Amino acid sequence: MNIFLGLDIGGTTVKAALVTESGEILHKHEFPTNANAGLDDFCERTYQALSLGVKESGCSLQDVRGVGVGIPGPVDLNTGTVIEAVNLGWTNVPVVKLLKDRLGLPVALENDANVAALGEAWRGAGSGSESALCVVVGTGVGGGIVLNGHLYRGAHGGAGEIGHLMVLRDGPLCNCGNHGCLETLASATAIIREAKNAQTRGEIPANRVISGAQDVFALADAGNLAARKVITDAAEWLGYGLGLAACTLNPEVIVLGGGVSRAKDALLLPVREAFARYVFPVIRDDSRIELATLGNDAGVIGSARLIAQQVGA
Amino acid sequence: MNIFLGLDIGGTTVKAALVTESGEILHKHEFPTNANAGLDDFCERTYQALSLGVKESGCSLQDVRGVGVGIPGPVDLNTGTVIEAVNLGWTNVPVVKLLKDRLGLPVALENDANVAALGEAWRGAGSGSESALCVVVGTGVGGGIVLNGHLYRGAHGGAGEIGHLMVLRDGPLCNCGNHGCLETLASATAIIREAKNAQTRGEIPANRVISGAQDVFALADAGNLAARKVITDAAEWLGYGLGLAACTLNPEVIVLGGGVSRAKDALLLPVREAFARYVFPVIRDDSRIELATLGNDAGVIGSARLIAQQVGA
Repeated sequence: MNIFLGLDIGGTTVKAALVTESGEILHKHEFPTNANAGLDDFCERTYQALSLGVKESGCSLQDVRGVGVGIPGPVDLNTGTVIEAVNLGWTNVPVVKLLKDRLGLPVALENDANVAALGEAWRGAGSGSESALCVVVGTGVGGGIVLNGHLYRGAHGGAGEIGHLMVLRDGPLCNCGNHGCLETLASATAIIREAKNAQTRGEIPANRVISGAQDVFALADAGNLAARKVITDAAEWLGYGLGLAACTLNPEVIVLGGGVSRAKDALLLPVREAFARYVFPVIRDDSRIELATLGNDAGVIGSARLIAQQVGA
Repeated sequence: MNIFLGLDIGGTTVKAALVTESGEILHKHEFPTNANAGLDDFCERTYQALSLGVKESGCSLQDVRGVGVGIPGPVDLNTGTVIEAVNLGWTNVPVVKLLKDRLGLPVALENDANVAALGEAWRGAGSGSESALCVVVGTGVGGGIVLNGHLYRGAHGGAGEIGHLMVLRDGPLCNCGNHGCLETLASATAIIREAKNAQTRGEIPANRVISGAQDVFALADAGNLAARKVITDAAEWLGYGLGLAACTLNPEVIVLGGGVSRAKDALLLPVREAFARYVFPVIRDDSRIELATLGNDAGVIGSARLIAQQVGA
């Protein structure tokens, strides 16, 4: 049996899973990232997670063929290095070498949006498709492209980064330095910002706590018109941005994931409706939009798939 | 020696070339398309062009391994059929079968923008790149995507059709039925339309004939301010549209071809300048824009490459 350890490293916790070559999760475990404790400590806890998984799942360590790692930030595939992961405080960290030395296994590294895309395209909403654009709508808007089962990264890993499509020239300032990028208008951050603006204008009761996009969806669901408009506007921008990406890529499926997608049809239906207005017929008929199905498991499954592809298992 | 016949079928003429497996043109020939004369006649003249090429180039018919065909319209790869080519009056024409029967050789079919993209990516401005977006700016704006040397068509052949990026909502009506598609603002047609509008307003002398984009470039070059603005505006839209496509695809190179690109630096420089303002840093640094280098040969070279890939030679 070929088994792979998939890691999805976040600012707070590391998700670790033992995944079979067909994508079944044998064992799942989370441990604190605790990046401040240093890299040796991190590698040690990863080793312990691997040992625990092997023990509890009853598989053999000999069956584990490699480790895939998803990182919240850009990575250098050639050197196996995390270029910068702000949430981890990691800059130029040779994660592949460090984990390989400690675990004695092949290690593959990728950006977390890309491994989540690979997971969804392989075993989630994109399963069976030849081409998938997987979009994560959360604090920002990220994405990844999977063609014929393999990640397509583009010239420098920028492929699928549709959060930076400049959909509204002179729009809100983006972290990238430009204005009006899609993620300034369609992310959870944008939804919260616009809802708070509506609250300031008195259109949403002052005593309602708006801490996440789900609060705004709940308000909209309860009939608040201002909250509804915030959601409609965000969905409109998302449909427009996905339309631009689809006109370039004509993917078989566009997978919508991330925290905001937990609103399900309340997001999906207006996004689909907007998308259809912004694309030409071939794209309208042949690039469908679906909700992600793997939830938080997309990253670990995609990480496992990544290393499986790399070792050829 | 492996030789391939590349055909680039236009509304008026068919370009035919014998191309070696390394992309060298051994013989080039044009003949009238004369689509009205019927399909048997067309196949017969194609056979004669092949015979002529073999004779004049001194190669052997036995060395010709197959025929690639570029068509001005959508094709069905599964059936080898031209779905519709308005300029040829062809609807549901089984070109692969017809030519195969007459020539006794394997035949591959593609859309003409796609074969031109394949040609430029293989032997032209995209040579050596892992990912190329090749854009044809002429009567419309078309394009094709070549990844790792192979055409990427998307789910239904719509990939790379960036002429239909809706860059200006409520912009001019497009042939596709939408408004504000890139080709309504950045094609030769758009440049001519805007220049004629300027002429109507008296900003371009009434006695100047504006029959092509080159006339507008000439006026701009001679210092006419209105013509300059027309060019600047078209280049701005093109830079914006290429920026959107590049944010999705992060191609190593974007190749600008087609009639309008004959203006060379007068188009390229403002397009590059606009592009840089609309994309985020990774794309700005890693997706470069270059002028096509193969001119009218891109189609026949790409067609030859297509069939070479198909027969595995």
